[in-house]
Amino acid sequence: MEKTGFRKNLINIEPYVAGEQPKSENIIKLNANENAYPPSPLVQKAISGFDASVLRKYPDFSGEPLKSKLALYYGLKPSQVFVGNGSDDVLAAAFRAFFNSDKPILYPDVTYSFYPVWCDIMRIPYKTIPLKEDLTIDVNDYNTENGGIIFPNPNAPTSIALDKDKIITLLDNNRDVVVVIDETYIDFGGESCIDLLDKYDNLVLTRTFSKSRSLAGMRLGFAMASEELIAYMNAVKDSYNSYPVDAVAIKAGCAAVEDDKYFKDTLNKLVSTRERLADALSDMGFDVADSSANFLFAKHDKYAAKEVFAFLREKGIFVRYFNKPRIDDRLRITVGTDEETDALINALKELI
Amino acid sequence: MEKTGFRKNLINIEPYVAGEQPKSENIIKLNANENAYPPSPLVQKAISGFDASVLRKYPDFSGEPLKSKLALYYGLKPSQVFVGNGSDDVLAAAFRAFFNSDKPILYPDVTYSFYPVWCDIMRIPYKTIPLKEDLTIDVNDYNTENGGIIFPNPNAPTSIALDKDKIITLLDNNRDVVVVIDETYIDFGGESCIDLLDKYDNLVLTRTFSKSRSLAGMRLGFAMASEELIAYMNAVKDSYNSYPVDAVAIKAGCAAVEDDKYFKDTLNKLVSTRERLADALSDMGFDVADSSANFLFAKHDKYAAKEVFAFLREKGIFVRYFNKPRIDDRLRITVGTDEETDALINALKELI
Repeated sequence: MEKTGFRKNLINIEPYVAGEQPKSENIIKLNANENAYPPSPLVQKAISGFDASVLRKYPDFSGEPLKSKLALYYGLKPSQVFVGNGSDDVLAAAFRAFFNSDKPILYPDVTYSFYPVWCDIMRIPYKTIPLKEDLTIDVNDYNTENGGIIFPNPNAPTSIALDKDKIITLLDNNRDVVVVIDETYIDFGGESCIDLLDKYDNLVLTRTFSKSRSLAGMRLGFAMASEELIAYMNAVKDSYNSYPVDAVAIKAGCAAVEDDKYFKDTLNKLVSTRERLADALSDMGFDVADSSANFLFAKHDKYAAKEVFAFLREKGIFVRYFNKPRIDDRLRITVGTDEETDALINALKELI
Repeated sequence: MEKTGFRKNLINIEPYVAGEQPKSENIIKLNANENAYPPSPLVQKAISGFDASVLRKYPDFSGEPLKSKLALYYGLKPSQVFVGNGSDDVLAAAFRAFFNSDKPILYPDVTYSFYPVWCDIMRIPYKTIPLKEDLTIDVNDYNTENGGIIFPNPNAPTSIALDKDKIITLLDNNRDVVVVIDETYIDFGGESCIDLLDKYDNLVLTRTFSKSRSLAGMRLGFAMASEELIAYMNAVKDSYNSYPVDAVAIKAGCAAVEDDKYFKDTLNKLVSTRERLADALSDMGFDVADSSANFLFAKHDKYAAKEVFAFLREKGIFVRYFNKPRIDDRLRITVGTDEETDALINALKELI
């Protein structure tokens, strides 16, 4: 039916479909790559002790003191750090700031589903580069004229990290464009490229508090790059939303960064549970990608992913199934607590 | 100097300049239209009692239960309410959802400075309609072919409200486009158009918690419209940032809405202080626009706005001066506490 009147001017858009957020309390939620553990007790303390009277004022424009806290932690200058409302906000600012070429930007065909959305919204031309059959990135495939490059390391939903020497090759081959590496899952494995920021002034790293720091509900992300590139991200952010991160989130983020022991203990627990789950899945005949993240990407030759997904769902265990070419034979399974992992393994044993 | 290498692809942008955020504690800050009073004690209670462990999960997609709380308060369905990270976030979603015509959208020449920014970013054609000499909107000037209309009521920085019968005339003359009324300051005066939502399915109202509800630091805004139009805003939001408002902000917002007595007491205090300040300024020879907001827009025949601004700044009192055509003869002065207002009046008496 043709739209008439004011309806002619409404946007024509397909909404993003995120992982199910089932409301019941009696379910095991392994479908959104959330952290299995709560944030540091220092975060609880920061929130409980927060003086609400300061909320009458706008928060600090640039996200201070969180920027300084992160800079200190990662050995950078505060002017090399950008903070935003979750890494989606940070990535959107990066796309707008850095991808303004007529040539297509490049990213893997199997990767974070928001990249094409931002390209469409911002009218950025793009070209996807197929992963190899084993779901890995071959950096030689990126030796083609382009207006920028972005990929997650480790990649999602594959969970596979890219070796640093290969990243260096990619950077050396692409000095004339901005390269954004989305390090959402880097704390769980793989090698961060922070130490490459000094050498490559066209490199941008993005991060989030949603995964390794257990603050998905707080919406906090950040980017690290040269002062020059961060200044461009600030300009973008200031231009269409001048008061980015709220005052409580700033405090909570600082507390999360302060409690480094808790952070590392949680990471160690999750990595150890991940390895145990990967072994158990392999024993049951699953092919499990070599994960450097807080999730596994697994397929089974005898059981279709869609059926395993439906079976687990019936048992109240939610994992992620993507009805998409190349990956519809796999499940993305978030690493939960040990108890959740036991429940998952036991449920799968019933099936297999 | 011509840009080379990756710098060729960097965005060409002019950062927005917001009101100064002076860091010293010993200043009187009347330059950002922040509320003079802290949020309700229920907000403090909601934050202090917040269970940080829930932050490991993403917040509710749609901002429940805040949407339901607002719907109940304003007599609407929850599906008629959209919540976002401050009204800038809400307005940006509205621009993207509703202004997709080749014809220009219309807004006043003197108004919120973000409208042209969003138009530029989203490539929306626009045409500004000059305010009358007395800084009021003449709705007959909007009887021209257009792709949408937006204006604040009360307008900013003029502080002047538009009569409802005139708004009805404008709506009747513009049934074929979406009309967005930005009710950021409506709680301080003027008449809300909420009761017109039933009749005009092309009407969208936007609001914020930053002004009348003292939560600028929390970043919370909302929109009210028909279910149909709100669904479009949700689709826009979901498509480029699927987890909009953080979990603490949702709780704090609910608490703010619950404490209606505190809300109205604070409004009454501010309105009464506003009238006292307006009288005092008039007595000193200022021409003060008839304010329905939490700020005044004033000029003096004998003292240039820029000089009064500089004089007050020296005294540690920050008001807002716009170095822009048509309004560079005026100051925008936020209504503070009674003590802050006394200090302002006394300082001005020294000058005048």
